[in-house]
Amino acid sequence: MKKLTIAIDTLGGDLGPAAVVEGAEMALQQFPFLEPVLFGDEEVLRPLLKKDMKIIHAPTVIDPGESPTLAFRRKKDSSIVVGLKYVKEGHALGFVSAGSTGALLTGATVLIGRRPGIERPALGTVLPSKTGHTLLLDCGANMDSKPSYLAQFALLGTEYMQKCMGMTTPRVGLINVGLEEEKGNTLTKEAYALLKETSGINFVGNIEGRDILAGGVDVVVCDGFTGNVLLKHTEGFAKIILGMIKEQLLSTTISKIGALLAKGAFGKLKKRFDYREVGGAPFLGLNHIVIKAHGSSDALAIKNAIRQCVEYAGQ
Amino acid sequence: MKKLTIAIDTLGGDLGPAAVVEGAEMALQQFPFLEPVLFGDEEVLRPLLKKDMKIIHAPTVIDPGESPTLAFRRKKDSSIVVGLKYVKEGHALGFVSAGSTGALLTGATVLIGRRPGIERPALGTVLPSKTGHTLLLDCGANMDSKPSYLAQFALLGTEYMQKCMGMTTPRVGLINVGLEEEKGNTLTKEAYALLKETSGINFVGNIEGRDILAGGVDVVVCDGFTGNVLLKHTEGFAKIILGMIKEQLLSTTISKIGALLAKGAFGKLKKRFDYREVGGAPFLGLNHIVIKAHGSSDALAIKNAIRQCVEYAGQ
Repeated sequence: MKKLTIAIDTLGGDLGPAAVVEGAEMALQQFPFLEPVLFGDEEVLRPLLKKDMKIIHAPTVIDPGESPTLAFRRKKDSSIVVGLKYVKEGHALGFVSAGSTGALLTGATVLIGRRPGIERPALGTVLPSKTGHTLLLDCGANMDSKPSYLAQFALLGTEYMQKCMGMTTPRVGLINVGLEEEKGNTLTKEAYALLKETSGINFVGNIEGRDILAGGVDVVVCDGFTGNVLLKHTEGFAKIILGMIKEQLLSTTISKIGALLAKGAFGKLKKRFDYREVGGAPFLGLNHIVIKAHGSSDALAIKNAIRQCVEYAGQ
Repeated sequence: MKKLTIAIDTLGGDLGPAAVVEGAEMALQQFPFLEPVLFGDEEVLRPLLKKDMKIIHAPTVIDPGESPTLAFRRKKDSSIVVGLKYVKEGHALGFVSAGSTGALLTGATVLIGRRPGIERPALGTVLPSKTGHTLLLDCGANMDSKPSYLAQFALLGTEYMQKCMGMTTPRVGLINVGLEEEKGNTLTKEAYALLKETSGINFVGNIEGRDILAGGVDVVVCDGFTGNVLLKHTEGFAKIILGMIKEQLLSTTISKIGALLAKGAFGKLKKRFDYREVGGAPFLGLNHIVIKAHGSSDALAIKNAIRQCVEYAGQ
């Protein structure tokens, strides 16, 4: 069986290399044809391994606070730089990292390079919708976007949902302030016209804020500013609502008993919003896929981020 | 005691003139110095009145689907046109309407006119935050905004929260993708610089999506596109989460019993998200305040929209 090599950054995650190694081992169990290559401190990694895996020594970590451009010049032996170069040179089909988003985005764009026809790569996020999953992109790679970027995001998102979610013709929506074609700002008006003409996508039109997660679309495109604000707001708001519910439930004895009886129901809901089940954020539009795993990824989250790479890169 | 006159549109709301009249009567009970003036069909209104109120006959309604510009030219006897003119001529200090948002925004800008120093009026929305309330503006009046608009929104929002929420120095945040000054798109970078220099506001810096409703700021400013998408997403997402909770709670007998016991707790939460308690969306930056009440406003919602006008216009 042909091996599928994925490069994995063991540094930069909040839980340290042990969680990443465990995640890689879980992925290996699920995909026997997978060949994980670990980037990090060999001395730390070697004792953690239960299965035989290739290690490439790259012991330096890029901190989230560092300027990505400076870090790239100075930290030539960082796991992100060495790992991305490894992918660029064709030794692996994808890269997974729970490290600094800025460094990863800058590094991937510079080192791996854009796919032909793609002006700007985009950061996607798969969100749980009412009926399934919706891919939101761009979530923050391109602050000021041009209409052509949004049309390319639609193509990239379509391909991702086909490969990783098994959809045949994902529905693409443009985030806007109204359903009518003439609604919106300069960007969305021009993007609408372009999306209508773009072949290879199933463009269903504008989608308003309230319908993004209602299940009517599979891919929603927007500029990176709007996407980033929306994504973070969604995370924050979910936490606030669930916190308010908890507070209310604990406010009286009767409702406390009620909460106890309903615990199983809340558990299921929590799982639905568990980012670890979905995996990481795909960085799309490069010559190879790069997955940004959540900073606090545990083994399960890392395993699912590797799974995304396998599904995207595999045949 | 000096009378405070507010113009009230009785047409365009989903529940018809009866709900508006009842709301006006409730407001009158709370504010004996209030002088409500009702705009609508006199024949319909007269029999609804329990208290004596002034009625100005303006029987035509502008539909949400109509082009605001066309409607303004054609429907000279519509409640919105006649009511706004009444305010413009100085007979009333504010206008409340549950009618078409587009017509109201266009009409108010054209007829009532902008305040000196304000380039563009903004539509605000008061959202429940973790600790109190946050005013989000612009929620959709200005699709493509300039940095100077955002600085003016900050001033308008500050004044609103002082007058209507009794705050002395409301904290103002700029919606952005990171906390650092250099983050964001072209608009927010320039707006940050301008907000720092704007006197009369308590600018606390950038605010990320996740913190908009966390309670750390009282006024958040952004362009009308971002604000509209965010606002509608918040409404839609709250509904989706609460729907998912309901579904899970009803899925087993045990959790059903739990839900029943916890009903009071959920009721309190629902009240917290009840737009009727907050009132309508203030349209700020004009020579007089205009409140856009929710289309499905009942008497309580109308009463609170009138209360906003009274608080803003009163001394």
